[in-house]
Amino acid sequence: MALLYKSDPVRGAEWAKILAEKAPELSFRIWPDIGDPAEIRYFVAWMPPDDLAERFPNLELLMSSGAGVDHLDLSKLPPNLPVARMIETGIVDGMVEYVSMAVLGLHRDLIDYVGQQRAEIWQQIRVRPASTRRVGVLGLGMLGEACCRMLRTLGFQVAGWSRSGREIEGVTCFAGTESLPDFLGRTDILVCLLPLTEETRGMLGAELFAQLPNGARLVNVGRGGHLDQEALLAALESGQISAAVLDVCTPEPLTPGHPLWSHPRVLLTPHVASMTQPETAVDLVLENLRRHKAGEPLLGAVDRKRGY
Amino acid sequence: MALLYKSDPVRGAEWAKILAEKAPELSFRIWPDIGDPAEIRYFVAWMPPDDLAERFPNLELLMSSGAGVDHLDLSKLPPNLPVARMIETGIVDGMVEYVSMAVLGLHRDLIDYVGQQRAEIWQQIRVRPASTRRVGVLGLGMLGEACCRMLRTLGFQVAGWSRSGREIEGVTCFAGTESLPDFLGRTDILVCLLPLTEETRGMLGAELFAQLPNGARLVNVGRGGHLDQEALLAALESGQISAAVLDVCTPEPLTPGHPLWSHPRVLLTPHVASMTQPETAVDLVLENLRRHKAGEPLLGAVDRKRGY
Repeated sequence: MALLYKSDPVRGAEWAKILAEKAPELSFRIWPDIGDPAEIRYFVAWMPPDDLAERFPNLELLMSSGAGVDHLDLSKLPPNLPVARMIETGIVDGMVEYVSMAVLGLHRDLIDYVGQQRAEIWQQIRVRPASTRRVGVLGLGMLGEACCRMLRTLGFQVAGWSRSGREIEGVTCFAGTESLPDFLGRTDILVCLLPLTEETRGMLGAELFAQLPNGARLVNVGRGGHLDQEALLAALESGQISAAVLDVCTPEPLTPGHPLWSHPRVLLTPHVASMTQPETAVDLVLENLRRHKAGEPLLGAVDRKRGY
Repeated sequence: MALLYKSDPVRGAEWAKILAEKAPELSFRIWPDIGDPAEIRYFVAWMPPDDLAERFPNLELLMSSGAGVDHLDLSKLPPNLPVARMIETGIVDGMVEYVSMAVLGLHRDLIDYVGQQRAEIWQQIRVRPASTRRVGVLGLGMLGEACCRMLRTLGFQVAGWSRSGREIEGVTCFAGTESLPDFLGRTDILVCLLPLTEETRGMLGAELFAQLPNGARLVNVGRGGHLDQEALLAALESGQISAAVLDVCTPEPLTPGHPLWSHPRVLLTPHVASMTQPETAVDLVLENLRRHKAGEPLLGAVDRKRGY
């Protein structure tokens, strides 16, 4: 009975150490050192191979090594194979840190000051209290909910939007497509934490931007596919969007010379908003193995029809 | 009986509006429209005139319009005139926002990513959890304490240092000069929130930097006078300090061409970490007027011997 790992090898070596301590009975293998493929029952992977069923005839469980599964073609996976996403506490905490930094940065005009410093300009922009700034979070899964709570603690007026609705203390929650205009109309800083599905692809586009207050600010920590980059460039040009922090883009990395690299109103980071942390990821995997054996629902179980 | 205001005139107009509502009986005057100087009993000022006693013979109370009084020569003020600093909740909240942004930015390598974006480089730096990052706050007045609490909530390992010692839940507090080496030795990100006095001037210098772990990061939201800028440039050059966020400097603005303007490891903002917010500042001033009349201790009372 073995657990196979196919993702960042540096972190893989840390998984091996942690697992040797926490679950010495489990045989842990790091791709490509698979050993006997028939022994592989559990698989943690970012990019699993295409011939999953043929290669690992006894595979019982597939877990993404990241928070998303949008990079996988779910229809090509063995039909009855349970799939789980990696929503471990380390990923959640990392995302809360990044979103807090990005929202505070946009709130406190950091992009302006980076530009001013470069031009040797010393000009104060008046500080506006967080309590007067309306932040809106698109997507209220574990990541979105945790970000809402911290943004609330930081003093912002926080609202969240999700397809099916949620309740989060101190956060105004909007549900469903029909409530989207109201949500957008009250949002000064928009944070995208949606899963990428056929419904959400390209959602951050001209139509959505037009429903935000003029001069709104954007944080995209979802996927590059959520954002229509041409529409963003146009909205920045018109001033409808006044600044953006992007952790994801299309393609990654951006092509050389792409206008987002050098845009004075864009802060770009190389898909680092959050990363799986070995210590907490191992805990989640072991808990999911226990649940799987006990026939209990998996944490982060993927609904193939929903796409996440 | 009148209250005179001498500070940013745009905010002064807002003070007038708020005071007209909250304390209609109080005559509010904005410099230079003083009216009868003999009527001035209370004075809110950033820079009071030198001839305070002669000009306002009935002055009972001087309040700084900002959090500090280091720009005043306290020895030149009328000897028995009570002086208070403006530690109002708006200033505290603004400082907590800025320090959270700066510490998160240094923690999450934002200065590196700003440089990478400019050079069209896409390179991930591994995310390290906040729980493994040790932040140290110099100065545990109202601002320092509030920042410690929020940094703790954000997940950092937080310690604070002050001359006389404090107790803050979840924060390791160090007291007095003899404990400074231990405090510095455990600090990956140092935040300066000290008052500027003869004792603290130039404190952020070569000797202090050498006691931090190699590669430590710095946030200065105190005063430019706390920092030996030449020593910082040398520490950045050697790598002893790996990055700095400076909201204050000497002089303000920096001279044209000063190396801090263009330093790739420095993020500079034009003294905007926090600003007095009229709504909450008026509340504090009215509370201090009440206390003054009742003979109770003032909020933010300045001890002239301590210098803050």
